[in-house]
Amino acid sequence: MSLDLTADVVTLTEALVDIESVSRNEQSITDQIEAALRQCGHLGVTRIGNSLVARTDLGSGERVVIAGHVDTVPVHDNLPSRNDGTFLHGLGTCDMKGGVAVGLKLAAGVPEPNRDVTYVFYECEEIEEVHNGLRVIAEQRPDLVQADFAILMEPSDAGVEAGCQGTLRVEVRTRGERAHSARSWKGVNAIHRAAEVLRRLDEYDARRPVIDGLEYHEGLNAVGINGGVATNVIPDEAVVTVNYRFAPDLDQEEALAFVRSFFDGFEVTLTDSAPGARPGLDLPAAKAFVAAVGGAVKPKFGWTDVARFSALGVPAVNYGPGDPSLAHKQEEHVPIEQIRRCEETMRAWLGA
Amino acid sequence: MSLDLTADVVTLTEALVDIESVSRNEQSITDQIEAALRQCGHLGVTRIGNSLVARTDLGSGERVVIAGHVDTVPVHDNLPSRNDGTFLHGLGTCDMKGGVAVGLKLAAGVPEPNRDVTYVFYECEEIEEVHNGLRVIAEQRPDLVQADFAILMEPSDAGVEAGCQGTLRVEVRTRGERAHSARSWKGVNAIHRAAEVLRRLDEYDARRPVIDGLEYHEGLNAVGINGGVATNVIPDEAVVTVNYRFAPDLDQEEALAFVRSFFDGFEVTLTDSAPGARPGLDLPAAKAFVAAVGGAVKPKFGWTDVARFSALGVPAVNYGPGDPSLAHKQEEHVPIEQIRRCEETMRAWLGA
Repeated sequence: MSLDLTADVVTLTEALVDIESVSRNEQSITDQIEAALRQCGHLGVTRIGNSLVARTDLGSGERVVIAGHVDTVPVHDNLPSRNDGTFLHGLGTCDMKGGVAVGLKLAAGVPEPNRDVTYVFYECEEIEEVHNGLRVIAEQRPDLVQADFAILMEPSDAGVEAGCQGTLRVEVRTRGERAHSARSWKGVNAIHRAAEVLRRLDEYDARRPVIDGLEYHEGLNAVGINGGVATNVIPDEAVVTVNYRFAPDLDQEEALAFVRSFFDGFEVTLTDSAPGARPGLDLPAAKAFVAAVGGAVKPKFGWTDVARFSALGVPAVNYGPGDPSLAHKQEEHVPIEQIRRCEETMRAWLGA
Repeated sequence: MSLDLTADVVTLTEALVDIESVSRNEQSITDQIEAALRQCGHLGVTRIGNSLVARTDLGSGERVVIAGHVDTVPVHDNLPSRNDGTFLHGLGTCDMKGGVAVGLKLAAGVPEPNRDVTYVFYECEEIEEVHNGLRVIAEQRPDLVQADFAILMEPSDAGVEAGCQGTLRVEVRTRGERAHSARSWKGVNAIHRAAEVLRRLDEYDARRPVIDGLEYHEGLNAVGINGGVATNVIPDEAVVTVNYRFAPDLDQEEALAFVRSFFDGFEVTLTDSAPGARPGLDLPAAKAFVAAVGGAVKPKFGWTDVARFSALGVPAVNYGPGDPSLAHKQEEHVPIEQIRRCEETMRAWLGA
């Protein structure tokens, strides 16, 4: 079975949504996309797992990537799609099959773009990073994703969101000494010692650096706290899990150094970390894209695969239909007008 | 089968320890104690469940209770007993079969005490209060435990520990508003709000009131803390579980009022509460006992069934062999010398 890429972009979005493709179950949707792309003589198609790379090869001096993931978070009584005339509702409408439909329409319908294009439709973005299809492609065939610029069609309300903040998590641990709570002075209460950890967090003043003209907004937050042995025991350990969302003028080492100095005097253990991505709006390809798309450029606060492109040396932005705050919500939906607008804007940018 | 109450008190302790009697499994030990007590013509014996009350009825103007529980915490590779010549080792040696053996020796061996005695050997002290044998007796036959004074033979290092502190637990709850941690400023972090709760606890200055000449020592401690939704979500709730151990000059209502005012501005929910017991050392029966036993009287910090007697209007003290800090430990043991000393001291006090 093959998708009909000559269909209207909204019809195509509906068709994509109605093929259930929760992470690790992308075989069917990828088969159907692959069959459709292989009918396009102007594209060279490579499949790696359930990810696809489709490239024009016009010998243009410039190459851009247009990418989107085909998987979704788990079904939550929100399939099949429903079109109310203004919005398309259902799992994946916003995150991010509207964007994938736009990419597919361009791949099939713009055989001679004014710059070479590498289309990437990939698996496993919504689960543990080790499975991420874009990561796998970059590791196995880095040549396939080299480009001057990349557009990740994640929902951004059909505006350009540039760069992305990095994220890291640490455990801040306090220690004490157990005792029976009837004779508490014989022990040392580790939970009480966490008072200072929380006080510093409570008084934290977020950095809001301006980078390439965009104002980022950091965050340093306890996302978990845990302590206690039994209700009659003075606890000997408390752990505060802290998430630092850092602006892309810091690399991961600098971000961790900040967190360590912030919690000076406490035991800090890094549990995970992902770099941010500078907006890169000073680069010619990015400038040209922003000029073509129009509208205000906003900073991206959440972490996306834009950072992965950035780490590969490819400046990237988010640009796609849908409100990013609806991603992963049961009631996710996408404005039909935004899907159409994204297609038209990018079609024009590619000179079609 | 019946216990031999003519045996030496240490031999009797060993025999009691070697009858496994984890809470809810007291049938066998109670059967054997009952059979032995029923051979004593000077005692009137009543059985309620797996608890026994054995009373002299000499028409003395004074009546005292000598009580001990026959159950233990679960077996932890610490049975049968082992006698190294100085200590008797094993489950229940300290908490509290040494004390029970002393009580049994007195019950059988002092047929004409100088004051009437009510011996109580009861079940289910180590588990949920609803099962507590002393509680059941007091509810079903309050007449059986009325007395001028009570000695609970819990381990107290063979010294008198008077009164006991009360205990209550509350949950102190902070609330916030969820948001994605990449846009934390759109939410309110409930864990950060707990900083003030912990600060107050950390700066708490324990009250140490002197009551009937004994210095108590209160404690107000976080014994648990919990918060967090997911590692990328600003948490909307945090709960600090706080245990207040209060001196017996406060009743439960006063203790709770103190905790509520201490956490003024926060949501405080009472989860459990048990009253303390004043030492009552000004009462003639208590004075006489302390004089007979000799040595310094210490305050009891931990909660014991002394408080239950106190609530029944019977002043009570703890007095028994064994280091109370070894109770519930795998390696519990009791000094043989203390078992013997307790028996001799009490035998003398009863005029034998």
